[in-house]
Amino acid sequence: MAIRVVVWGENIHDRENETVRKIYPKGMHGAIADALNKDKGIKAATATMDQPEHGLSQKLLDQTDVLTWWGHRNHGGVDDAIVERVAKRVWEGMGLIVLHSGHFSKIFRRLMGTPCSLTWREAGEKERVWTINRQHPIAQGLDPWFVIPETEMYGEPFLIPEPMETVFISWYDGGEVFRSGVTFQRGGGRIFYFSPGHEVYPIYKDRNVGQVLRNAVNWAYNPAKPWKGVEIAPNRPTEKAPEPITEKGPKLHKPGEEGLR
Amino acid sequence: MAIRVVVWGENIHDRENETVRKIYPKGMHGAIADALNKDKGIKAATATMDQPEHGLSQKLLDQTDVLTWWGHRNHGGVDDAIVERVAKRVWEGMGLIVLHSGHFSKIFRRLMGTPCSLTWREAGEKERVWTINRQHPIAQGLDPWFVIPETEMYGEPFLIPEPMETVFISWYDGGEVFRSGVTFQRGGGRIFYFSPGHEVYPIYKDRNVGQVLRNAVNWAYNPAKPWKGVEIAPNRPTEKAPEPITEKGPKLHKPGEEGLR
Amino acid sequence: MAIRVVVWGENIHDRENETVRKIYPKGMHGAIADALNKDKGIKAATATMDQPEHGLSQKLLDQTDVLTWWGHRNHGGVDDAIVERVAKRVWEGMGLIVLHSGHFSKIFRRLMGTPCSLTWREAGEKERVWTINRQHPIAQGLDPWFVIPETEMYGEPFLIPEPMETVFISWYDGGEVFRSGVTFQRGGGRIFYFSPGHEVYPIYKDRNVGQVLRNAVNWAYNPAKPWKGVEIAPNRPTEKAPEPITEKGPKLHKPGEEGLR
Amino acid sequence: MAIRVVVWGENIHDRENETVRKIYPKGMHGAIADALNKDKGIKAATATMDQPEHGLSQKLLDQTDVLTWWGHRNHGGVDDAIVERVAKRVWEGMGLIVLHSGHFSKIFRRLMGTPCSLTWREAGEKERVWTINRQHPIAQGLDPWFVIPETEMYGEPFLIPEPMETVFISWYDGGEVFRSGVTFQRGGGRIFYFSPGHEVYPIYKDRNVGQVLRNAVNWAYNPAKPWKGVEIAPNRPTEKAPEPITEKGPKLHKPGEEGLR
Repeated sequence: MAIRVVVWGENIHDRENETVRKIYPKGMHGAIADALNKDKGIKAATATMDQPEHGLSQKLLDQTDVLTWWGHRNHGGVDDAIVERVAKRVWEGMGLIVLHSGHFSKIFRRLMGTPCSLTWREAGEKERVWTINRQHPIAQGLDPWFVIPETEMYGEPFLIPEPMETVFISWYDGGEVFRSGVTFQRGGGRIFYFSPGHEVYPIYKDRNVGQVLRNAVNWAYNPAKPWKGVEIAPNRPTEKAPEPITEKGPKLHKPGEEGLR
Repeated sequence: MAIRVVVWGENIHDRENETVRKIYPKGMHGAIADALNKDKGIKAATATMDQPEHGLSQKLLDQTDVLTWWGHRNHGGVDDAIVERVAKRVWEGMGLIVLHSGHFSKIFRRLMGTPCSLTWREAGEKERVWTINRQHPIAQGLDPWFVIPETEMYGEPFLIPEPMETVFISWYDGGEVFRSGVTFQRGGGRIFYFSPGHEVYPIYKDRNVGQVLRNAVNWAYNPAKPWKGVEIAPNRPTEKAPEPITEKGPKLHKPGEEGLR
Repeated sequence: MAIRVVVWGENIHDRENETVRKIYPKGMHGAIADALNKDKGIKAATATMDQPEHGLSQKLLDQTDVLTWWGHRNHGGVDDAIVERVAKRVWEGMGLIVLHSGHFSKIFRRLMGTPCSLTWREAGEKERVWTINRQHPIAQGLDPWFVIPETEMYGEPFLIPEPMETVFISWYDGGEVFRSGVTFQRGGGRIFYFSPGHEVYPIYKDRNVGQVLRNAVNWAYNPAKPWKGVEIAPNRPTEKAPEPITEKGPKLHKPGEEGLR
Repeated sequence: MAIRVVVWGENIHDRENETVRKIYPKGMHGAIADALNKDKGIKAATATMDQPEHGLSQKLLDQTDVLTWWGHRNHGGVDDAIVERVAKRVWEGMGLIVLHSGHFSKIFRRLMGTPCSLTWREAGEKERVWTINRQHPIAQGLDPWFVIPETEMYGEPFLIPEPMETVFISWYDGGEVFRSGVTFQRGGGRIFYFSPGHEVYPIYKDRNVGQVLRNAVNWAYNPAKPWKGVEIAPNRPTEKAPEPITEKGPKLHKPGEEGLR
């Protein structure tokens, strides 16, 4: 069975900005989904912010293996309840690919626990993406480096926790560097952040970027059954302790009482 | 100059529960502060939830090097704005020691990006805390293991990101294990979580626990000047690029415009 | 195509010790290979220390996707050249599963860069293996914990680098704990250490242990083409620099000269 | 008491190469020691390869808190026994700073367990060193970036284990990037690798580089008492088990027997 992907797009600049509209007539989410669907093992659909529940109903998320996230113009407009819903699905095992300006999305900051800030410059300069570990699943099919001819510069310091793996580091014409591809594990879910993807350049039509996205989806996919209740702290009472023990001492909780939260 | 510590206490069970009141007549925060102040290099004061701004004004936090956090009964009652304030101070460089039931505090879950759930049992059983790396600053002055005679069991799975360092792992009478001492780095701030500390046992009067707390404060202290603006993504415009470049291509942002958020 | 596994066995106690011989009439390597071959996606053969080149010719290693390693009696007798050969294959992308007393094997210590020491006791006591992240590929099909009725105790401190992931932690009757399942990445190769497996108990016939081994092989398998030359530091001369530059300043190396080593 | 540092120098190019001799009349080790001794809390001496035992007697190492290592011309000539001696001192708690071409030293490869290979080019090009976390102790007193006007390029992929912390990443004129400052923990010892330092440029006289070196020594210093016997796996017999247990089952080891190795 194919990996079920939902490509989430903010879909604001895609509609309102003429430059973006010309490059991505089907929206950026449309282009990303097209890139993913070139892999026959992937079945990518799209969802956008303007849909009810931002297109991310619990039912849809429960049937989603990997979610990709692109937003820029209105991170603040994303409903906090939807953010929590997505975070929980990640902890349960859903993969998450966060793209470019998504570094400042609520969901990425929620899962990192850091500001996810960086420096930036929009000058159409050249970016060279270096592969740090060519054996990593996300780097398959790539050369030692590839070039994005026109990019928005994202520079260090990038305020993320130390990644599980640094997969890509970028070099820029203007003199900066950036950890442009990094992985994290949060609960049952794997997370990949990939920085290329500014909306006024046709980056999601780039052959190498498409390869990275397809690789990332395959890497982030966790076939394990969702970890329902991952956020709950269950009591294991004395009579169910793996080793027989005798209760002693004073108590705060009454028998059968739920834990505090 | 001494390390300036604020010992934050929820101060609910400390007042309302007779057992807790007897063990900790000055409140748990009082006992923790006493344990810390045995180190002449530490100057620990207390703050409690019932005070204005939960006792954590911006001014006080700006003068705090390390904050310790104990809460249990009413995590949900902590004001979100105060949580964000504390998180920002951690990113700027303030150390944070999260204690026992603080695993479910808003601030710890905020900084971890995971549910921080676990299993638990209140049976007064024995806990043996094993030191994983005896050369770690937090483990100085300890034996290979120490025993807490009566404890609340906290068991794996503990839903945290993979720690920077696993300092302690606990064994329980009832058959469970737990990563009872773990470190993290988030922005400029160091974080240490330490699980012993249930309120109906005199754990914060334990000699070894006191040693761990003092060690942890010294370890978490970062003398660097606070990283003000750590949460902002500054633009570095073309004319200030480290290497001279010429702008090209289309643009989303107007000159001098702030970044989107 | 099936994952090609070589199960390496020291094959000394297997032949010389009557207890071991009775439990493992085909040798421990035989039992491990049997456990692996229950997965139709795995094709496991065996190799033993007493064979020419310890059964690990370059040709065989080049056709091996994952190697498992069990040794105890004579780690020192393993040829250093073979150890280097295996290490290089791991860096190129071959997976490695190190078992039980293999913690002190030359190859494990070579790849960890640490002593890999621990404490131990042979008392036939009970071990309870706790799963830390049930969504991890190596933990699939397991309960929250499983028990090994008679085990050799391996206790902390375990002198390894901080793992990429802690998958299992064990509890022992006698009061110790141990990080019994840990992962590492070294170059292109994934490494999993799993501690259960003392030779005088039938541990490799245990249902759960078999499940862990099969899971681990699938996890460690890297389908990428071997990274030949991973150990070489290639010169990229000025005329092949990604960006045009002009040489300047004094020089140590003559043009075309190889790097020092 | 001051931190006792030994600056180890290969001292071959320092003597034989006229360019190097002019830049570093006291040898590179002399210049590094001078840079360190500007910190009154540091007391740096030197040792060189041509001395008996390469200048690294057990007695000297036992009195050394932090060792810095620079070699290039003859890594292979370093005695394996001395390498093991140094490795053991690191595991016991001695800090280690590995410099530039020391990436290929026996001691660094020994402690990393990886090839430590990279790409390189000697063209006197410009290197810009970016600070990833300005709150890190090793980054104190530095600007967001500093420039080394003439450098040897060291480029990714750098075949090291995923670092504990990435402190610096470098940008090069010729288009490459490199993780130029990375930390590791191995046993009780902290390790810092710093890549700038090619011998035909006056890099160790650079103000910023000197600052990094002094910071790194302070960071790597572990005041804990050396962990003697860190490489030994001690038996904890049944009668000394933390919990009372009764031996059962068959045995491999006779009572009081040492562990196999």
